Amino acid sequence: MTDDPAGAAGDDERVADWPVALSGVTESVVTTLGPNGRWNAAALGLFAGDPVTARTWGNTRTKRNFHRRGEGYVQFVDDPVVFTDAALSRYEVDEPILGEANAWARVTAESIETGTDDGTEWEQWTLEPVDSTVVRTEVPTIDRGFAAVVEATVAASRLGVDGYDESTLRDRLAHYASVVDRAGGPREREALERVREHSNW
Amino acid sequence: MTDDPAGAAGDDERVADWPVALSGVTESVVTTLGPNGRWNAAALGLFAGDPVTARTWGNTRTKRNFHRRGEGYVQFVDDPVVFTDAALSRYEVDEPILGEANAWARVTAESIETGTDDGTEWEQWTLEPVDSTVVRTEVPTIDRGFAAVVEATVAASRLGVDGYDESTLRDRLAHYASVVDRAGGPREREALERVREHSNW
Repeated sequence: MTDDPAGAAGDDERVADWPVALSGVTESVVTTLGPNGRWNAAALGLFAGDPVTARTWGNTRTKRNFHRRGEGYVQFVDDPVVFTDAALSRYEVDEPILGEANAWARVTAESIETGTDDGTEWEQWTLEPVDSTVVRTEVPTIDRGFAAVVEATVAASRLGVDGYDESTLRDRLAHYASVVDRAGGPREREALERVREHSNW
Repeated sequence: MTDDPAGAAGDDERVADWPVALSGVTESVVTTLGPNGRWNAAALGLFAGDPVTARTWGNTRTKRNFHRRGEGYVQFVDDPVVFTDAALSRYEVDEPILGEANAWARVTAESIETGTDDGTEWEQWTLEPVDSTVVRTEVPTIDRGFAAVVEATVAASRLGVDGYDESTLRDRLAHYASVVDRAGGPREREALERVREHSNW
C-alpha cells in the first residue's frame, strides 16, 4: 500500500488505509520506539472518524514516544494475554510488529488537544496510517470470557485513580472473574492471572 | 466438507468440522425449524469440547425444535442487532442461514442431560456438525461497545428470573449502556435500543 510515493499524494489523499473497518472505539495495541531503543507495547483505543483519533492518559510511555518520534505501529490482536500485558504492564519488544498482530498500521501521531479529567491529564492525537498490512483473517466469534478480560483490564487500571469508586470497580472485577471462570478458555484464565499480577486487584 | 458419504465414516470420524476454533464458551445464533415451517433464531452458547455441548434454559423454541427435528444451524454473526434480536425476541426467518452469518454449521442435536438451577429447567445437548461453511473472514477487532451489548442481553434476560438480584442486574445494565454510549458505533446503539424494547429493562 506504499506504491505511491508520499510526495505525490495531495493533502486529502491517504497514503495507506486502516487494515480493519473502525466503528465507535476499537481497542488496539500500539508499539512506540522508546529512548532505550526498544519498542513499548501499550493498549490504545482508536476513535473512528476522519481522521482517527486516540487519547493517552497521564504521562505514559506512549505519550512520550509519540512526542519524540511522531509515530507508532497500531496493531490488532485477539490474544487476551498479549492485550492484558500491553494494557497493564511495562511490555517492551525488540521489533515493532508483534507476532500476534492479525493486522497492523504504521501511523503518524500528531497532538491536537490536551486536557484534564478528574485530575488526570490527557492528550488527544490524530493517527494517520502511512503503511498497513493484514496478516491473517478469521471468522470473528463472540467470546464473553475474552470480553470480560478486556473489561477487567479497564477496571483494574482505574483502581486507586481519583474519580472512580473502588468498591464499584471491585464488584465489577469479581463479576468479570466469574464470567471468565464460566466462559473463558485457557488463555483468558492466564490473562486474568496477569490482570491480578499487574494491578492492585 | 461433505465429500465423504456419511456411511463411510466410522463412529469416531467426523462428517464435518466446526467452521471456527472453539475455546471456552462461544456465543452463536442457532436456527431450528418450528412446527409452523419457519426457522426460529435464538442465541446459543457453545461449550468447547469433544463433542461440543450447549444448554437450553426453560421450555424454549430451540429446545422444542431440537426435540422435534434433532438438528439446527449454528451460526457465527458479528452484528449486534442480529445477536440481540436472536437473544431476546421471537425472531423467525424463512431460510435456515442468516445473511449475516460469517460461518455456519448444520448440527445434529442430541439431549444428554436435564436438570434444574434456581427453579429453571435446563437441558444439555451434544452438537455434531454434519456440514459447515465459512462465508467470510475478517481481522478480528476488540470492540467494548459490542461486548457491552452482548452482556446487556445476558443481564436483561435475567430480569425477573429467580436467583438473580434485580438491582445488581440494573446496575450492570446502566454500566453497559455507558460503555455503548462511549465506545459503541451506530449498530451497537441500535442494538441497545432493541435490548430495551425486548425486555423489562
